[in-house]
Amino acid sequence: MELSQRIKGINGGGSDGWGIFYRARQMKAEGRAVTELTIGEHDIRTDPLILNHMHKTALAGTTGYAMIPGIAPLREAVAKRVQAQTGVQTLPENVLITAGGQAALYAAHHAVCNPGDRAMFIDPHYATYPGTVRANGAIPVPVPARPEAGFQPDPAVIAAHAEGATSLLINSPNNPTGVIYSRETLEGIARVVQDKDLWLISDEVYDTQVWDGAHLSPRTLPGMAERTLVIGSMSKSHAMTGSRIGWIIGPVEAITHLINLATNTNYGVPGYIQEAALFALTLGADFEARIAEPFQRRRAIALDLLARQNAVRAVPPQGAMYTMLDIRATGLDGNAFAAHLLEEHGIAVMPGESFGQAATGHIRVAMTIPDAPFSAAFQTLLDVAGELAGQA
Amino acid sequence: MELSQRIKGINGGGSDGWGIFYRARQMKAEGRAVTELTIGEHDIRTDPLILNHMHKTALAGTTGYAMIPGIAPLREAVAKRVQAQTGVQTLPENVLITAGGQAALYAAHHAVCNPGDRAMFIDPHYATYPGTVRANGAIPVPVPARPEAGFQPDPAVIAAHAEGATSLLINSPNNPTGVIYSRETLEGIARVVQDKDLWLISDEVYDTQVWDGAHLSPRTLPGMAERTLVIGSMSKSHAMTGSRIGWIIGPVEAITHLINLATNTNYGVPGYIQEAALFALTLGADFEARIAEPFQRRRAIALDLLARQNAVRAVPPQGAMYTMLDIRATGLDGNAFAAHLLEEHGIAVMPGESFGQAATGHIRVAMTIPDAPFSAAFQTLLDVAGELAGQA
Repeated sequence: MELSQRIKGINGGGSDGWGIFYRARQMKAEGRAVTELTIGEHDIRTDPLILNHMHKTALAGTTGYAMIPGIAPLREAVAKRVQAQTGVQTLPENVLITAGGQAALYAAHHAVCNPGDRAMFIDPHYATYPGTVRANGAIPVPVPARPEAGFQPDPAVIAAHAEGATSLLINSPNNPTGVIYSRETLEGIARVVQDKDLWLISDEVYDTQVWDGAHLSPRTLPGMAERTLVIGSMSKSHAMTGSRIGWIIGPVEAITHLINLATNTNYGVPGYIQEAALFALTLGADFEARIAEPFQRRRAIALDLLARQNAVRAVPPQGAMYTMLDIRATGLDGNAFAAHLLEEHGIAVMPGESFGQAATGHIRVAMTIPDAPFSAAFQTLLDVAGELAGQA
Repeated sequence: MELSQRIKGINGGGSDGWGIFYRARQMKAEGRAVTELTIGEHDIRTDPLILNHMHKTALAGTTGYAMIPGIAPLREAVAKRVQAQTGVQTLPENVLITAGGQAALYAAHHAVCNPGDRAMFIDPHYATYPGTVRANGAIPVPVPARPEAGFQPDPAVIAAHAEGATSLLINSPNNPTGVIYSRETLEGIARVVQDKDLWLISDEVYDTQVWDGAHLSPRTLPGMAERTLVIGSMSKSHAMTGSRIGWIIGPVEAITHLINLATNTNYGVPGYIQEAALFALTLGADFEARIAEPFQRRRAIALDLLARQNAVRAVPPQGAMYTMLDIRATGLDGNAFAAHLLEEHGIAVMPGESFGQAATGHIRVAMTIPDAPFSAAFQTLLDVAGELAGQA
């Protein structure tokens, strides 16, 4: 009577990467002032318009079991949105509604990885990627993207890691780096994926947060729609993080099997949340721009403050709600710097090491608090780094 | 580039057991009158009191990421409820909040089954049990409970199936049979589980629907708390099916690992739904009795109508929202009878075969429509059976 090897192995024997986050929450619970620049969550809440609509439909009766693949109008709305954004034919049958982007990531790996298969993802990576792979009994294979290359993945390096792999997971706009993959990068990735006969899992949950350059969904590239599972979510685009609603776009056969998985995992997503999502999608581009705009504004603040000092170098943040900072000049690694910044200055950031090996010596700053305190905390961070760099 | 064997195998190469259900929904979509006695869903909706509270907390800001194991007050409330019901010490650390009972069933099997392990469950069984096991890469082992024994499982038969098994899943009050396992049955199960060093997964989602006898949670039996994972849910007890909120109760070590799984699957359950569940639990026993009462009332209607005829024999429904009827006297199996009843009389019931092999020749009637049409449909069903039995 033991627990399964698979569940015991989810964290890979190491930490889950959330140590600083938990420590910050603990300090707050103890009544200490902590500025949290850790997780990717808006400083605004879900718009009351959306909540009021949710409540209206719940009172009208959307509280029973919803259709497991998603309610028909939401599948259709998501399909139309994706088709309009990408030009790739997308039908409701290509869409499975999921309980958020993370559930979609889990299900996508379930669908394409057999136990023991190798599942690649680009390092630095979102904190859950290795655990998501391990929870599916597959073997996580981080493929480093170098800071010197602006964290753009190198298709040749991916190919060199592809032996025994069945899937590659990418994420652009990228968390944690803020990088947007170039067309050249994505075309290179598409070639490797086809050469090695892999599935591509494309996590595009930051696709409405683009500050510099353009987002290209790799599903649009020739030969890719049949082998790409796109992960989408309302969390970042509509400030609906806690509502746990997202989707997978993929070939009909894959979605058909994923519906079977959904039947045996979540048994559908609450109907009133689906109605809220459907309503939110009708709010249009202006609404989405309004949700995204604070991060663009704070990015400008960060770039401005960074330009006035030399201790910290930034990977230019092209998208998403983060800046990734190179703090190697301080002589500390990301963990040590983040711990120092939290304990001594009450500012919580994520160590680059939370996101793999490739971002060692970096920290990720989530631009998720109002401008004034963000500016102050960011300045303190730069001052601390400058002081340490002077001593180093 | 193939889909995983695991996901392709979820339905075991057969049907998912929902054929009649889907056919009924299709007929309704085509405008035909269909009386649905198929799924376990109340004919009332979630109480507006609960929905109003949910909305209030959502507007107040419970729309961001919630703590992944569940919000602290809900874990505490569930722990207290379970401890009060069972007398077994239950702390918040013994509780993981999940996106419904089905998600809990999936996670529980993930936690205790390695790929290739055999996972037992009692047949007849809820439709998703084999798929839930297969989705986890384990091998479903149905253990027949005989209609002649009132569908009470026989511990000796369980023991005879236990070779290579790591878990046994039971469900009392039982779906689909409406049977409540006796103390004797559960003590026998506890002995086998301990003898064979198994995990027991105890699905107790119908524990507020008890009409005859008493519900005993096997976690209360000596030596069982350390090897039992209890599945709970607000779906049936509080008419919150669509809200997808439930829990797992288990040893702290198991819950700790299950939290890691939750991090990599759903990333938590919506905070406002957790607040709604917390509020619903405060509504007390009277509220729960009011939610359960219609099924008790319709059970009496069914028993009364059954007593006036001889073609159909009922397994005495002790709990839950179903009656299981033996229609073998008609000369038809459950599938054929259900198909006939749907096509010729517009009444949809679930064939016993949807729930395994042991309930062949039976149909499950969900008592989930108002009394008058329920009574009429049930009478029609009995008349149809009587006519067929006369011809058989």
